[in-house]
Amino acid sequence: MPAQRTTPIRVTVWGENRHERVDESVGRIYPDGMHTTIAGGIVEHLGDGCVVRTATLDDPEHGLTDEVLEQTDVLTWWGHAAHDEVRDDVVERVHRHVLSGMGLVVLHSGHWSKVFTTLMGTSCTLSRRAAHDRELVWTVDPTHPITEGVPNPIIIDAQEMYGETFDIPAPDELIFISSFTGGEVFRSGCTFRRGHGKIFFFSPGDQDYPVYHHADVRRVIANGVVWVKSDRPRTLPTLLRYETDDFFNGHGYTGPIESQEEQAHAPTN
Amino acid sequence: MPAQRTTPIRVTVWGENRHERVDESVGRIYPDGMHTTIAGGIVEHLGDGCVVRTATLDDPEHGLTDEVLEQTDVLTWWGHAAHDEVRDDVVERVHRHVLSGMGLVVLHSGHWSKVFTTLMGTSCTLSRRAAHDRELVWTVDPTHPITEGVPNPIIIDAQEMYGETFDIPAPDELIFISSFTGGEVFRSGCTFRRGHGKIFFFSPGDQDYPVYHHADVRRVIANGVVWVKSDRPRTLPTLLRYETDDFFNGHGYTGPIESQEEQAHAPTN
Amino acid sequence: MPAQRTTPIRVTVWGENRHERVDESVGRIYPDGMHTTIAGGIVEHLGDGCVVRTATLDDPEHGLTDEVLEQTDVLTWWGHAAHDEVRDDVVERVHRHVLSGMGLVVLHSGHWSKVFTTLMGTSCTLSRRAAHDRELVWTVDPTHPITEGVPNPIIIDAQEMYGETFDIPAPDELIFISSFTGGEVFRSGCTFRRGHGKIFFFSPGDQDYPVYHHADVRRVIANGVVWVKSDRPRTLPTLLRYETDDFFNGHGYTGPIESQEEQAHAPTN
Amino acid sequence: MPAQRTTPIRVTVWGENRHERVDESVGRIYPDGMHTTIAGGIVEHLGDGCVVRTATLDDPEHGLTDEVLEQTDVLTWWGHAAHDEVRDDVVERVHRHVLSGMGLVVLHSGHWSKVFTTLMGTSCTLSRRAAHDRELVWTVDPTHPITEGVPNPIIIDAQEMYGETFDIPAPDELIFISSFTGGEVFRSGCTFRRGHGKIFFFSPGDQDYPVYHHADVRRVIANGVVWVKSDRPRTLPTLLRYETDDFFNGHGYTGPIESQEEQAHAPTN
Repeated sequence: MPAQRTTPIRVTVWGENRHERVDESVGRIYPDGMHTTIAGGIVEHLGDGCVVRTATLDDPEHGLTDEVLEQTDVLTWWGHAAHDEVRDDVVERVHRHVLSGMGLVVLHSGHWSKVFTTLMGTSCTLSRRAAHDRELVWTVDPTHPITEGVPNPIIIDAQEMYGETFDIPAPDELIFISSFTGGEVFRSGCTFRRGHGKIFFFSPGDQDYPVYHHADVRRVIANGVVWVKSDRPRTLPTLLRYETDDFFNGHGYTGPIESQEEQAHAPTN
Repeated sequence: MPAQRTTPIRVTVWGENRHERVDESVGRIYPDGMHTTIAGGIVEHLGDGCVVRTATLDDPEHGLTDEVLEQTDVLTWWGHAAHDEVRDDVVERVHRHVLSGMGLVVLHSGHWSKVFTTLMGTSCTLSRRAAHDRELVWTVDPTHPITEGVPNPIIIDAQEMYGETFDIPAPDELIFISSFTGGEVFRSGCTFRRGHGKIFFFSPGDQDYPVYHHADVRRVIANGVVWVKSDRPRTLPTLLRYETDDFFNGHGYTGPIESQEEQAHAPTN
Repeated sequence: MPAQRTTPIRVTVWGENRHERVDESVGRIYPDGMHTTIAGGIVEHLGDGCVVRTATLDDPEHGLTDEVLEQTDVLTWWGHAAHDEVRDDVVERVHRHVLSGMGLVVLHSGHWSKVFTTLMGTSCTLSRRAAHDRELVWTVDPTHPITEGVPNPIIIDAQEMYGETFDIPAPDELIFISSFTGGEVFRSGCTFRRGHGKIFFFSPGDQDYPVYHHADVRRVIANGVVWVKSDRPRTLPTLLRYETDDFFNGHGYTGPIESQEEQAHAPTN
Repeated sequence: MPAQRTTPIRVTVWGENRHERVDESVGRIYPDGMHTTIAGGIVEHLGDGCVVRTATLDDPEHGLTDEVLEQTDVLTWWGHAAHDEVRDDVVERVHRHVLSGMGLVVLHSGHWSKVFTTLMGTSCTLSRRAAHDRELVWTVDPTHPITEGVPNPIIIDAQEMYGETFDIPAPDELIFISSFTGGEVFRSGCTFRRGHGKIFFFSPGDQDYPVYHHADVRRVIANGVVWVKSDRPRTLPTLLRYETDDFFNGHGYTGPIESQEEQAHAPTN
């Protein structure tokens, strides 16, 4: 295969950026915000292969205008304390871009974001314990690209606990299962395809512990960014109407009653 | 196993009931409304094993109050021309009941209902041709309870066409694949689990053709009703917080910041 | 639904029955053999709803003649030390019956039996530690019939460890995930459909610990027996040849070259 | 991302090569054997990105020695009339290499090869009609890499029919569904992961019709070759034993009874 120069992946790292400013102990771990640390981990691994920007809740339109999303190949999402403050129109916009092919990496407490629950259709609830735990992240799918270069298990010495039952649809691929000090387990790495978009959920990562400084966690997130990136032009799935024996020239939806009228005049085969 | 008397399945058949009254030709096929014909097919097969009521769009709250849903084991859904008229609060209510364990059978153009798209998280778009087609419904999962007593293929002589690409999450189980006169194919029988609820989508059925009078289609719908029925008490999945080494006495969510304060006072292990 | 009397499920519990006689400590835990204890747990829960027999490695044809298998709705399999002694023709016979619709429950070290590896097509290897562990069995699929009446988690105080990566195909349904004292995790309850047969793999259970006396483990196995039982007549999937426009009268395979000759004389459409 | 030079994919195209020599009409379509035509299609699309060799049934050891397989990243398999002549030891060898990470593309009647049925664990039977049909290959998973550059549907004007029910395990990914002139449907493009290996089954292709000269079919096969290629070193999944609190230094299996003895001397935690 000849030498090839790949276009860099355009990544937008979205962070809620509230804990960091409200809680001093979080601010010490993530002095520039968790989003900056997460962005740093992606650049660390992908280098020139990515162009990373960040956006936060308090930016106008949360930093997620149509213009930004159109130029975003992969969006990563971290939120926790302020899920409710995310505007519904922005959620709808992100949802539409994911269905159109934008990749999405959902991190940790992002499991309960409006964006993720809208895509999953379930409550995305789980069990948790906000005390000091050791998390072990085990690989279940050892040849998946997202596991490349990652030890089995990943050992995270300080972490809160997320446990089953995690109310999500059965994932398309189950990649990681974690266990915690108390003996709990969690499906911590899952992929989903929705519309034309690929989604990777990865649970390790917390505001109270320096998980996003962990070398293996950073590697997994970078791998996830590469994996969810689509190679196709962005297009929203649409409902198309075809004439008999035509497979390639469908036209858009014209409403249920109108199409009946059309049908009345259409030749039957 | 000793003789057992099973409690009848309480079914609510929901129908939009608009085409039947607007379009004379539809009214001739379904003089009492499609919902009545669908309900009749379920009773025909389940007999004393079910108690069936119907509800329609023009009923107060679309006939789907909390009281009705609490007493509904299985809801079937047919809509087409008036998806947009279904109130968002009723959609939210149905969604909550499905996640809590109410079974759902989504029929034909119900693929584009707010209820189904909310549960799927995708656009649920497809290709279609509203002309006279023969549909063949092939069994892919021959031992699934939903296929019991059903010929392979089911032959439906008059039907419109639904074709791929159907924008749904990969189903948990793919049961039927249909083909049409024009050579199109469609994943016409799929199951999904969402929260505590089971969902069966079955595409054959149309207002312009007498598909709900077809013996095999009626059998599949009745089988689907039995299959989606839950045997568990209805409960919404909830986010629970646990103390160390307790697995059984989780308490409810108290908010992200509060739980941090609790954590500050919690013993660490 | 009227009162109904269901035909009892005919269960054959197969046990290798070697450890029990070689190792005194195993004999103390299972004085009549593990198969007898397992059979007892099934009867305890299903009562008149089942008829259970046992068969062991040292029986003629391992107790698994065609006559026995034809009258077996569900076979449970436990083996460990003597997988290699199981005759290939018996494995082939069991395999054929599973593909024809016999239910199969594979227990613990049965993961490495010829029967299971033949059905899976993979190595079915895993990680293990034969030391004293606590196993917690967590429910991932809370509405699955196999989890009915089972606490979440099941706590097994004395157990060896089975850990990931478990080399199996992605299961059709993932029901339980276990964790162990050392922090390992394992997909401990999985279902698979193969041919017309349903398979449930359940890993808790060991010769060195009294796991098959554990109330919840017994309940899960009994639930599994009910779940894998087929309601259809036993038939082996076969390759069928059809004439144009006939869907229901396929005839058996007559060989690749012969069918070419037939084709030469067949009308083309 | 800097310019990168990827190592070419080493492909071995295996062909039974019997029909071509026995049946004059097949010889006219594939004068150098079907394997040569298939190999040509792969080179046509991957160019310098692949190195392709061919091997056939009548080569010593069917051309599939350990040396050849060790240097094969991806094996494609076409067989039909002589599945039974493939030596069991070669099947075992290919199976082992797939579980170790060699990619496998199974073509058309290869569905009934020993290699494929061993990997699937099922009968892999289907319905068929060896008459002239039009096949339409529809895309179900529109963003899968295997569908890149492929029209939806692919139109194959001359083809025999393969129909459901196809007795395979539920595929990990369903990519294509075909329909035929008679109205039959078939899951014609499926992926499976087994051990460390990826498998793509693609049914279009037949000895009696020039399907392997079809531009889109050639593209799909080339895409499949790229997709099943593993990026990891080839290793067979193995059963490993660990000591307490060690996760990374498992040692090999030493037998069921021996490990018991070890256990007697092992410290318990």
